Amino acid sequence: MSASHWIQALCVFGFAALLGVTRAGAQAQPQLNLMPWPSSVELGTGQFRFDESFSVLPDLRGPQDARLNSAVGRFVQQLARQTGMPKRVLERPISGSAKFLISTEHGSKDVQELGEDESYVLQITTDAVLLTAPTALGAMHGLQTFLQLVEVTPDGFAAPAVTIHDTPRFPWRGLMIDVSRHFIPLGVLKRNIDGMEAVKMNVFHWHLSENQGFRIESKKFPKLHEMGSDNMFYTQDEVRDLIGYARERGIRVVPEFDMPGHSTAWFVGYPELASGPGPYGIERKWGVFDPAMDPTNEKTYKFLDELIAEMTKLFPDRYFHIGGDEVNGKQWDSNPKIQQFMKSHNLKNNEALQAYFSQRVQKLVTKHGKAVVGWDEVFIPGVPKDIVIQSWRGQASLAQAASQGYHGILSNGYYLDLGWSTARHYAVDPMGGAAANLTPEQQKLILGGESCMWSEYVNAETIDSRIWPRNAAIAERLWSPQSVSDPASMYARLHAVSARLELLDLTHEKYYRPMLQRIAGPASPEELQALRTLTDVVEPVKDYAREQLAPAEPTSATPLIRVVDAIALESDTARRFAELVDKYLAASCRDAGVDARLRAQLISWRDNDARLQPLEQRSFLVKEVAQTSQDLSALGTMGLAALDFIAKGTGAPDSWTAEQTSAIQQIQKPKTQLLLMPAAVIQKLVDAVTPGGSCAGSKPQ
Amino acid sequence: MSASHWIQALCVFGFAALLGVTRAGAQAQPQLNLMPWPSSVELGTGQFRFDESFSVLPDLRGPQDARLNSAVGRFVQQLARQTGMPKRVLERPISGSAKFLISTEHGSKDVQELGEDESYVLQITTDAVLLTAPTALGAMHGLQTFLQLVEVTPDGFAAPAVTIHDTPRFPWRGLMIDVSRHFIPLGVLKRNIDGMEAVKMNVFHWHLSENQGFRIESKKFPKLHEMGSDNMFYTQDEVRDLIGYARERGIRVVPEFDMPGHSTAWFVGYPELASGPGPYGIERKWGVFDPAMDPTNEKTYKFLDELIAEMTKLFPDRYFHIGGDEVNGKQWDSNPKIQQFMKSHNLKNNEALQAYFSQRVQKLVTKHGKAVVGWDEVFIPGVPKDIVIQSWRGQASLAQAASQGYHGILSNGYYLDLGWSTARHYAVDPMGGAAANLTPEQQKLILGGESCMWSEYVNAETIDSRIWPRNAAIAERLWSPQSVSDPASMYARLHAVSARLELLDLTHEKYYRPMLQRIAGPASPEELQALRTLTDVVEPVKDYAREQLAPAEPTSATPLIRVVDAIALESDTARRFAELVDKYLAASCRDAGVDARLRAQLISWRDNDARLQPLEQRSFLVKEVAQTSQDLSALGTMGLAALDFIAKGTGAPDSWTAEQTSAIQQIQKPKTQLLLMPAAVIQKLVDAVTPGGSCAGSKPQ
Repeated sequence: MSASHWIQALCVFGFAALLGVTRAGAQAQPQLNLMPWPSSVELGTGQFRFDESFSVLPDLRGPQDARLNSAVGRFVQQLARQTGMPKRVLERPISGSAKFLISTEHGSKDVQELGEDESYVLQITTDAVLLTAPTALGAMHGLQTFLQLVEVTPDGFAAPAVTIHDTPRFPWRGLMIDVSRHFIPLGVLKRNIDGMEAVKMNVFHWHLSENQGFRIESKKFPKLHEMGSDNMFYTQDEVRDLIGYARERGIRVVPEFDMPGHSTAWFVGYPELASGPGPYGIERKWGVFDPAMDPTNEKTYKFLDELIAEMTKLFPDRYFHIGGDEVNGKQWDSNPKIQQFMKSHNLKNNEALQAYFSQRVQKLVTKHGKAVVGWDEVFIPGVPKDIVIQSWRGQASLAQAASQGYHGILSNGYYLDLGWSTARHYAVDPMGGAAANLTPEQQKLILGGESCMWSEYVNAETIDSRIWPRNAAIAERLWSPQSVSDPASMYARLHAVSARLELLDLTHEKYYRPMLQRIAGPASPEELQALRTLTDVVEPVKDYAREQLAPAEPTSATPLIRVVDAIALESDTARRFAELVDKYLAASCRDAGVDARLRAQLISWRDNDARLQPLEQRSFLVKEVAQTSQDLSALGTMGLAALDFIAKGTGAPDSWTAEQTSAIQQIQKPKTQLLLMPAAVIQKLVDAVTPGGSCAGSKPQ
Repeated sequence: MSASHWIQALCVFGFAALLGVTRAGAQAQPQLNLMPWPSSVELGTGQFRFDESFSVLPDLRGPQDARLNSAVGRFVQQLARQTGMPKRVLERPISGSAKFLISTEHGSKDVQELGEDESYVLQITTDAVLLTAPTALGAMHGLQTFLQLVEVTPDGFAAPAVTIHDTPRFPWRGLMIDVSRHFIPLGVLKRNIDGMEAVKMNVFHWHLSENQGFRIESKKFPKLHEMGSDNMFYTQDEVRDLIGYARERGIRVVPEFDMPGHSTAWFVGYPELASGPGPYGIERKWGVFDPAMDPTNEKTYKFLDELIAEMTKLFPDRYFHIGGDEVNGKQWDSNPKIQQFMKSHNLKNNEALQAYFSQRVQKLVTKHGKAVVGWDEVFIPGVPKDIVIQSWRGQASLAQAASQGYHGILSNGYYLDLGWSTARHYAVDPMGGAAANLTPEQQKLILGGESCMWSEYVNAETIDSRIWPRNAAIAERLWSPQSVSDPASMYARLHAVSARLELLDLTHEKYYRPMLQRIAGPASPEELQALRTLTDVVEPVKDYAREQLAPAEPTSATPLIRVVDAIALESDTARRFAELVDKYLAASCRDAGVDARLRAQLISWRDNDARLQPLEQRSFLVKEVAQTSQDLSALGTMGLAALDFIAKGTGAPDSWTAEQTSAIQQIQKPKTQLLLMPAAVIQKLVDAVTPGGSCAGSKPQ
């Protein structure tokens, strides 16, 4: 369709008036808390005030687009939440000066496609807002940008006058959630999809099957969910509901059925699919396990053909994920029939056997009208060109596929379960590493990336806090120009965006206090504060160390209520303290104000252990972190001593420095799977104790 | 039914073993965070440890009780939430030593009745738990008591060995929610019903119609909800859903259709019901308004007959509330036809006319098989004896009805919207005031009480914080023996109960931070903390002062996002500071530790205004409270000066005392509808500045 559609509030008025205003010169730049940052932002003069005269009427002229209408309805709801103005008032057409117009050229496709035009132009003047986009999808992104621009001001809520031209860098910007290792209820998925919409992600990758659970109803093979899910699965109605929910928010849903490994839960009901004898139970532990489908049995392919037929009907997206990762091959090695098959088919090793399996399954997916997505392992030279490789291995793997003409998306570097800092994820670029050396044509094959939330150590209560706000920074990496990469700017904006995401019912900030209360049990406000002073500066151990340092073998029955579960993955307090220390040490003369702030923080740490002790005696969950609490006190004491030495300018005895350094090394060893984040910074202070100092003469008294 | 039903976990074992153990002598009493406090609590020795060997199987022997089975399922879910143990694990039958048995004599009635036996006996030993009750309802209350007993300990989660005999003091323990002035979504009602179950309330009074909205679908008269609700109403399916939800939790649902006043929203679709000419629009303001039904028109009664027929079919409860409050009579006065009718029927005044209306409507309700509940105004001597008077006027009104043989419930004193302290509500007793003088027979007519949440100034975001945790104390007043009345014990337990209620998805604590973030806009943690230091010690003005002190006439379009909406109704910080000052002043010698704590608090207040100023300059919602922030700083300064004078023991110049007192009087005047709670306590400190002092010689230096 090329006709211009109009969603129009209140009054109709001329284009010219609008277009004339938006080019006003840029002023002193206010902080815009936009994430992802747009392709182009040109600030105008003044602001568009938001009050009860503001109205949006989803009143399309020309053909209606139901999805855009629905998006406008939710936009108004969200504006109501941000500003407290009742939705009823915002929907009511009142005569007034505020105007919000939306113009699109094309309505939505029945099924959202990879690579649709998602661009938009948002022009805000003091009088009106004009949002233009080639597609409904672009307009929906523009609505989200507007929501991020509305902020409290001295005169009420307002959005700054600005002209934004915006288009995504990559067409595939996804979040994968593993709902198998821990089941994640539908409502939790929905609020995460709301979060994805807010940061313009457009693919929800639904990791539906694993050793630990087959989470979707199959009418064709009901023993899959009946015996493989502990009765925790999504009905097909719920799946359709979620797909519709995601579509309304501009998000495609790609289901993953992981095979031939990661599939023990399938075998509980259908042991005949496996390469070993069985019987099988739902896996309760974490790791890579032996059970794998039997690639040599024609019945396996008949089963998969029927299952894929059922599931590809349910999921309208063009792409269908078949997993393919981490087969250890042990069941294949020990099955004589399989060994015989390999010989007779000239399959030299398990890799070749998996390639054989993969090609067979890819043909089934293609037969049912879908394109395949799979982890690195499914990439076998010669497979159809519409396959998409999802790389958990890294940019080199991606670049290799691209160099042979295959599409890929990056997930290595975006694993949310590894506890990395936001900045570390943010620095990973799909075009980085080996991909940077590709030709421009080859680079076009890299479609984007996906953050991955593997769920060994998350459940409905904590998962939001493990995805957000970090996922917003990954969303920016995938949407914004590659040059948008300053971590300081990212953190400043992330802080504001995070608060806003909580208004979408995400719980990544508000989960914290109730978890601390459970850990503490009945406690006075002072005791709770002492616990928080400690938990605010610890982080879980990184990468796969949690598994390695577990006090007992973790299983799916292990409660996720310990301090390691309750804390944020990234300590804001520690990061800000580190920044303050850097500022202190970088200054040529000691800043008394900074010194005072550092001391106040160090004193509160030093004195905290005494305050926490009553709780340590009452709660096993606090008792567990007693050593870390003592360590924090010790760090406080050391930091204060270092500041004193620095103030004196005399340096410190060598023995002192050595003792502190040794103590800090002990403190830096993880305890109860926790890292005490200020340790490294205190070491910096200790190291800064040198005779003289750069500005000894001008020290305040 | 008299057969004994058993819900039994794991193993069957003898009674004798259990009964023998529960009489062990009481030990040093742990703090039990029970609310409402039971009739009798006898502590045993040791504790019942809760770990993965604990299992409950809703495995009834004898006739099944679906409601109890469902309650056991939710009980396990809640235990899972409290302890982090996956529900799947708790449901799994494992061989082990933990046992939980439930024995009841009678299954549930189809419709829960007023006055059913709700008693239970809960016996917890180190080895097992035995819950016995005559009815499923009693057993359900016992499950809630057990949930309150499970707490974190040095060795894991456990419940203390204890024997509890418990039965409610009153059979009618309700919460009324006004869903008309602000619409309250079904999910919010459900989580409040969860809260009611946790504190053993048993009546949800659903105030469904008002001047500002008719909130329930009528199939018979669809213009009621179509034109009278701004499209914010409950469908009949949703109503049935809520009634079922409440029934599962041991809660009756009593609907209220308020008439002949408070009914403007009815007249939007059906102006012919009114006493004035119309046309009518949904009322947007608060207060008592003129429109009232025409009691002289037979068509009014025909309409009500059909509506009551429809609604009494929908609501299974025996009781049906017809409102009846606050008719100002102006439409009646100015309608000649009505005046003529009054003359011809010898109705001397509007009160008599309302009595006429009320009797007619009561007959309709009776005709449809229900008993009437109404506000004080519907009490007319001679009405059927099964009417229940709900008193907003007070105990005298209740006593008057009881003295004439009528049932009553108390709501005066339990209005949650008035911003009273928990202790003030807690001190109100249905048997207090004039009711105390009734004969024992008459006292039996007082069935209990209902807290009332009128919704002029609450919405879905804030309502939980206006109901909880205070409602738990009212629930205790209505359940526990009258002698349970110590506010200090109540506050200590309330603090723990409140945290637990948040695990039921109530938001009365977690709503706070997001609201402060909206008020602040993008802010640093320090700025947010400064805002919180202020908002932690202010309370909204009490009773109806908010209306009187409003900056502009409030309407249903007024955003509820100001500081007055975000703060708790009762400042814990101010209450604890006041306790500390009392302790300080009561001691014969000054306690250096208390002195230091007071000074730390006062310094943080004194210095807070400077920290808050950046936000005052950025946000109109913070700017509004600038004067209050300055006042808090002034109080900090005054308090510190008072402490200094007290320490010196020299007294202060008269002019100093007069100046402080005058300044505090200014500060105590409400500003922007806020009260600065520490003001009165600082006055106490100022007054305590006298020469000499009680222990001048032993002051620490």
